[in-house]
Amino acid sequence: MKQVAILGLSYFGSAVLDELLDMDVDILIIDKDREVLDRYRDTVSAAIGMDVINQEALEKTLPKHIDAVVIDMGKNIEASILAASYCNKLGVGTIIAKAETDAHGEILELVGATKVVFPNREAAKRIVPQIVSSLVLNYLPVGGNLVIAEVEIPEFFIGKTVLELDLRKKYGLNLISVRSVDTEYRLFMPDYRFQEKDIALVSGTETDVDRFAGRLEKEQSSKGFINSIKELFNKK
Amino acid sequence: MKQVAILGLSYFGSAVLDELLDMDVDILIIDKDREVLDRYRDTVSAAIGMDVINQEALEKTLPKHIDAVVIDMGKNIEASILAASYCNKLGVGTIIAKAETDAHGEILELVGATKVVFPNREAAKRIVPQIVSSLVLNYLPVGGNLVIAEVEIPEFFIGKTVLELDLRKKYGLNLISVRSVDTEYRLFMPDYRFQEKDIALVSGTETDVDRFAGRLEKEQSSKGFINSIKELFNKK
Repeated sequence: MKQVAILGLSYFGSAVLDELLDMDVDILIIDKDREVLDRYRDTVSAAIGMDVINQEALEKTLPKHIDAVVIDMGKNIEASILAASYCNKLGVGTIIAKAETDAHGEILELVGATKVVFPNREAAKRIVPQIVSSLVLNYLPVGGNLVIAEVEIPEFFIGKTVLELDLRKKYGLNLISVRSVDTEYRLFMPDYRFQEKDIALVSGTETDVDRFAGRLEKEQSSKGFINSIKELFNKK
Repeated sequence: MKQVAILGLSYFGSAVLDELLDMDVDILIIDKDREVLDRYRDTVSAAIGMDVINQEALEKTLPKHIDAVVIDMGKNIEASILAASYCNKLGVGTIIAKAETDAHGEILELVGATKVVFPNREAAKRIVPQIVSSLVLNYLPVGGNLVIAEVEIPEFFIGKTVLELDLRKKYGLNLISVRSVDTEYRLFMPDYRFQEKDIALVSGTETDVDRFAGRLEKEQSSKGFINSIKELFNKK
């Protein structure tokens, strides 16, 4: 069974613990705060009260050959850097650390974190395009200039099948999944016929997704559907 | 131009501001802390020092018909709830609030937040499957039982085209994009031929993705590729 230690149970550490509890792994939690440990003591393999910036204590406490360590010291940036550095010296293979700023993330990488997580920044990247364009509901930058976005389907999609619309060829978009306003995402077949209020999850370059969402928004209100369809189809 | 106000510049609020600065929107920031305001004063339309739990002051300060408000009071949960409630009473259409716990999120929705964001929990959901399975590099729950995951391609993919492998039919997976270890995601054509060390971004049900990643991991080491391919192809 894999062994994972969570050093620090601030918001991210606790969220990781909640997720790990559903999995078949051996969990060790370490925190200075005895109240926090007591809250989780019955659900984990071991709950140890100690300060992770004590290198010797950490070395004695962490099992040899532990598979992964998750570090979240909350606002205590120095402690998270020291903990990542110590775990690196101890030869831990996977060191996941939470960072709040670019500088913090850079230092964590320098001292040996194998993965730095920026929860607040990642959430911001998803939410901001949603504020700016009302047609794009949710937006996730994947890397390069590729994004995954939730898009309300334009009205002329209704009644057409996925195959007929050929989103990839006509708009450069890859259809990942479809849902209705009040249901969850599901697998779909190429003969799926779009229905009123469907929401599509698509991937594509930022430009293609923005153009698709932005253009439709503008043209639907100003020139009506016929022109908007014509323009879109002539685009490529 | 759209008008957006950020109430509170804790980690999430600042990250949203960083993203919004690249966009064509009018930004107003409000915080009690003058030092924080000074840091951003030159980059926004207005920086106002006030306590958002003063309903009258907030009403006087927020422009009428503001498009969206982003609320991040850090650890001050009561302030974020009051701010969301006041914005709701003022008729703000989009109220995005950061929450740390389920209870906090529920209350924010009750008092009128239109979208509640859980950055730490969302990051945890992505990172945990990655700890547990080494073949799945990165993992994003989309809704329902659908997930998007980064997967190292198995060796027998190398040299085959996307069309030949027919991931959708054979594994229930939708290929979103492909990258090499050291490049970023890009658009691909159906005749793309997989190369050594390629990483694929796929979507599918949690079960299909886990089975794909988990099975391959096990069978590659124990029975070699031929059997593993046979088994996978007989699966459906």
